[in-house]
Amino acid sequence: MGRVTDRRTVLRIQLGNEPVRRPDTLAAEEPLEIRVGRVQTQRQPLAVTMRTPGDDLDLALGFLCTEGIIRTADDVVTAQLCAGAETPNTYNVVDVALAAHVPPPETDPARHFYTTSSCGVCGKASIDAVRTRSAYDVSADGVTVAPPVLAGLPDALRAAQRAFDRTGGIHAAGLFTAAGELVVVREDVGRHNAVDKVVGWALRDGRLPLAGHLLLVSGRASFELTQKAWMAGIPVLAAVSAPSTLAMDFATETGMTLVGFLRGPTMNVYAGAHRLS
Amino acid sequence: MGRVTDRRTVLRIQLGNEPVRRPDTLAAEEPLEIRVGRVQTQRQPLAVTMRTPGDDLDLALGFLCTEGIIRTADDVVTAQLCAGAETPNTYNVVDVALAAHVPPPETDPARHFYTTSSCGVCGKASIDAVRTRSAYDVSADGVTVAPPVLAGLPDALRAAQRAFDRTGGIHAAGLFTAAGELVVVREDVGRHNAVDKVVGWALRDGRLPLAGHLLLVSGRASFELTQKAWMAGIPVLAAVSAPSTLAMDFATETGMTLVGFLRGPTMNVYAGAHRLS
Repeated sequence: MGRVTDRRTVLRIQLGNEPVRRPDTLAAEEPLEIRVGRVQTQRQPLAVTMRTPGDDLDLALGFLCTEGIIRTADDVVTAQLCAGAETPNTYNVVDVALAAHVPPPETDPARHFYTTSSCGVCGKASIDAVRTRSAYDVSADGVTVAPPVLAGLPDALRAAQRAFDRTGGIHAAGLFTAAGELVVVREDVGRHNAVDKVVGWALRDGRLPLAGHLLLVSGRASFELTQKAWMAGIPVLAAVSAPSTLAMDFATETGMTLVGFLRGPTMNVYAGAHRLS
Repeated sequence: MGRVTDRRTVLRIQLGNEPVRRPDTLAAEEPLEIRVGRVQTQRQPLAVTMRTPGDDLDLALGFLCTEGIIRTADDVVTAQLCAGAETPNTYNVVDVALAAHVPPPETDPARHFYTTSSCGVCGKASIDAVRTRSAYDVSADGVTVAPPVLAGLPDALRAAQRAFDRTGGIHAAGLFTAAGELVVVREDVGRHNAVDKVVGWALRDGRLPLAGHLLLVSGRASFELTQKAWMAGIPVLAAVSAPSTLAMDFATETGMTLVGFLRGPTMNVYAGAHRLS
């Protein structure tokens, strides 16, 4: 299994000075293949994601959850990190055996790609397709969050980002209570992976839906991240940077609260302002 | 066809002041389906990407190029933006008819997903798979770039980012000459899309391979972005933020120059330092 970060030698240039060779710590990136199927059958590859190694089972289970394939830990019989065909063993495969009551993932052989919930050629059609999948009604979540609590979250997330301190370049997703307590934080070179790692952890811990919780992401809020938060039953998504139009539309239509440009004492509320007390 | 940005009303909160409703400009995000096939056949969906509308033909052709499916404009008979099934027409489909001499995209029905060049379960195997695809030997590109020229590029890219000025949240990829002249800049909510839009523009303009050129990306340098630059024959990739381990490994093994944390007068060189004069 790879490491979360790796030390390399780089050439540091500062204009006006002599270039110097010095060590630098990089965020690790490796592919992870997720295989899915029934017990006692050959599991089939479903997706490959470029991710930072670590919490790979959570990543796989979170992905399957936010894609609407599983809903609880009982939907999975076994999930194991296993070897690919390579030598040395790269442990870049997660093999998931689904329970008999779980419908297999929707794949469309004629379309040559796995039909994820963020697919769909029209934003509206896509939103509609996603809405029918979720087990949870986030719109009814009556939680409220105080803006001063929100204002403190970016610093709390940043303080918990162990790999960012070393690399300066890795995304994070942090799950918080409405009172601003950090529940769990996960880092990854792919921001969607960081969210899936949080959701997979919560699924394995029997915490879904994450009613009353808030998810903070270190970058922008895309449609995909908003949809993933919603699939986990999270009523409030906050982002340090900007949301997209489709993220705002999706949050509005599903009754989520979406906060962007959360930078200390200032923030923009794009949807669900009634949850800000 | 959607717009690049859209105006919405948001609630602006600044602790200590009354919240105010005010307009905010968001980066547009909509799905784009890319369909591929022969002339006089029904083209089949190959991929869907969440993108910012605009330059959609370039995006589709750039995607097909960086995935190794096409190499020149002659590989394409027609490429057209067309309507999906929705009303009103969303223009979220690009239909590409390939020339008879172009092998069809590699798809693996048993794997349920399109086997992109960034797939592969081991980084090494993935790199090897990609290496066999490119038409260009970037390692032999003798271009050199002066660090003071590099130092000026982030400001030049930023100045050319029209949508970033309005939204504060959209990625950019800028193609420059070795002398630091901006050739073209493209913006997108997906950083891989911004690069594909640049490559597709160059392909349509008969400029591939982009020997002697430099690509600057506004965020981090992932394996995927490095591989896309390499597929277009670009010898120097620079990023405002951090590269991943796999991006550095790939650049090293393919003979590219990779610069990270390019922030004015300081920068780190991760691979191919011989091109910095």
